[in-house]
Amino acid sequence: MFVLVAKDVETGARSGKLSTVHGEINTPAFIPVGTQATVKALTPEDLVSLGAEIILCNTYHLYLRPGHDLIKGLGGLHRFMHWDYPLLTDSGGFQVYSMGANQRISEEGITFQSHLDGSRHLLGPELCITIQEALGVDIMMCLDECVPYPASYDYTSASLDRTTRWAERCKESTHHKDQALFGIVQGGMFKDLRARSASDLVALDLDGYALGGLSVGEETALMREMVEHTAPLLPEEKPRYLMGVGTPEDIVEAVKHGVDMFDCVLPTRNARNGMLFTRSGRIVIKNAKHRNEDGPIDPSCTCYTCKHYSRAYLHHLFSAKEILSSRLNTIHNLFYYLNLMKEIRTALRNGTFARFYQSFYEVRNENESPQAISLSAFQARR
Amino acid sequence: MFVLVAKDVETGARSGKLSTVHGEINTPAFIPVGTQATVKALTPEDLVSLGAEIILCNTYHLYLRPGHDLIKGLGGLHRFMHWDYPLLTDSGGFQVYSMGANQRISEEGITFQSHLDGSRHLLGPELCITIQEALGVDIMMCLDECVPYPASYDYTSASLDRTTRWAERCKESTHHKDQALFGIVQGGMFKDLRARSASDLVALDLDGYALGGLSVGEETALMREMVEHTAPLLPEEKPRYLMGVGTPEDIVEAVKHGVDMFDCVLPTRNARNGMLFTRSGRIVIKNAKHRNEDGPIDPSCTCYTCKHYSRAYLHHLFSAKEILSSRLNTIHNLFYYLNLMKEIRTALRNGTFARFYQSFYEVRNENESPQAISLSAFQARR
Repeated sequence: MFVLVAKDVETGARSGKLSTVHGEINTPAFIPVGTQATVKALTPEDLVSLGAEIILCNTYHLYLRPGHDLIKGLGGLHRFMHWDYPLLTDSGGFQVYSMGANQRISEEGITFQSHLDGSRHLLGPELCITIQEALGVDIMMCLDECVPYPASYDYTSASLDRTTRWAERCKESTHHKDQALFGIVQGGMFKDLRARSASDLVALDLDGYALGGLSVGEETALMREMVEHTAPLLPEEKPRYLMGVGTPEDIVEAVKHGVDMFDCVLPTRNARNGMLFTRSGRIVIKNAKHRNEDGPIDPSCTCYTCKHYSRAYLHHLFSAKEILSSRLNTIHNLFYYLNLMKEIRTALRNGTFARFYQSFYEVRNENESPQAISLSAFQARR
Repeated sequence: MFVLVAKDVETGARSGKLSTVHGEINTPAFIPVGTQATVKALTPEDLVSLGAEIILCNTYHLYLRPGHDLIKGLGGLHRFMHWDYPLLTDSGGFQVYSMGANQRISEEGITFQSHLDGSRHLLGPELCITIQEALGVDIMMCLDECVPYPASYDYTSASLDRTTRWAERCKESTHHKDQALFGIVQGGMFKDLRARSASDLVALDLDGYALGGLSVGEETALMREMVEHTAPLLPEEKPRYLMGVGTPEDIVEAVKHGVDMFDCVLPTRNARNGMLFTRSGRIVIKNAKHRNEDGPIDPSCTCYTCKHYSRAYLHHLFSAKEILSSRLNTIHNLFYYLNLMKEIRTALRNGTFARFYQSFYEVRNENESPQAISLSAFQARR
């Protein structure tokens, strides 16, 4: 169940609460990515202390290894990974597209070869739901086809209609009222197709709606234009989830257009690669200028890493390829993202979103303007 | 300062307290290895909660990267790595021998090429102390030559005399009374040479004595024989430290002969390789039999990992090469080692060491007898 608790008067931004049997998610929310039933380098206790209220796992990966039946037999995904809070799984469609080999898409579903052992599989809407029900997650995603960029109008049009038919089959396959099912709006970079996808999926009365097929290689400006166009087409009373996005700037912009949920590997993957987020912009910890730097990543940050470690130490850990490097950097970046969402929610609930928005850009370096490059989007998907 | 608080009546085993400006170490003590200024995968808070009272860092590694002057400029090693408790550094002699290239040993010291960039360095006793004083550690080790196994009597004899002369130069180079300096007994597998090395070093009145040059490829039985022979030659009122050893069985046997301190990469490195210690023996988590196993690593263990995760989940994390695998396995193995030391200390202080010793072997599988193979010793050094 989703309840709106605040709306900005000038923009589409809003704040709400999404309830699940494993707890409540305050929106706008960032969902850390735990692809293989673990947010890399962190424990569930770490995630709770960072302020995470929900995490995302990956249907494709868990289906292939260790297998959804095994996890079900061990009491479900929450128990398996020792995470007692809300869980969302994506449908696997995106990973089949990005990781599987020799994919073939038909009305039935997606046929692909495992990236692990080359075995052949058919992932259709019914199996997609069977997997997510076996895992016992709180929010399931409908199977969708993530159309590459660029793609022709005709291909995109036919594909989104198939995605809608798959959503219908997904809904028909569900057994458990306490597992929410979200649809995924496709339609590529064509506004009329986005509108048709949204309206057809809304007719299915799903529990929430995601914007899919974005951040797949298109320019940031185009991605943001599609968000601005599509988000208002979705029902106001249901949560809106922008999948695989993005930079802090991408998130702030999408919030402005009424998006409620985000997931992205950017904070966690970049942490492992030594790229750290700060209020004033990004820093690359391996750069020689940090070698002897006694200060923390961000003097204004109150995360565990910034409280106890210098840039010099983090530079050393990164240079020495130490595991603690990934852990401390991940703590910092996720704290940054989750704290950003908290600031956004507080601003919305206090009616000060306009002021938040202005100061968000004021403290950033020139190269971090709203028009700054987005992540190398495709790679940044989970 | 070292104070004995208990002695076993039947064996050489004893328990004591070693004081440093950063705190007290209860002996017998196990020293987790933090080669590059981090115990791999863990934070200092993790180590404290596991019961670690001291950790070891590596002079050779920190000299080459990031450099002792840099660490000194940032306030010393304790502050650099956010560890406020006792620190010990080894002398670097062993790493020069095992990791450096083109080593040449002369009276002056050890000339070697860095494993990082091939640069040439001369590590002599004076530099060895300069580095350890710059790091500001609580316990410094004298520079020694770790003689390979096997080595001739004549080579070993000449080498140990040089190691003694280096120890004298180390002592003369020290400036700070609050940094203890330990000598390292060499002498290979020759009992008379071990005796001469011990007696010459004891004459220098150092703060503690280590048994070096063991666990370098010799049979476990021979290593234990040398410990049994050498430990009683050292002054009763000073701490005795067996370097780079070993398995739980090696430690229990050495404690019996009066050893007070141990360091070894075995619990941490094996954790990362998926080998886990339990009261009844070792398990290899990647084995297929753990794939679907709902129980913890060790039902009698109270560590964080055993309290919250199944073997099946740990098997999955290891198979998926997840960072959390290293972290959870390291927590378990270090807890096992540190808890073993606590049980040993409790038994010694309660006068029940004989009973502890008997039950230690009773609960182990047949292949885990006192005569069981030691670690592949050479590789298991830090």
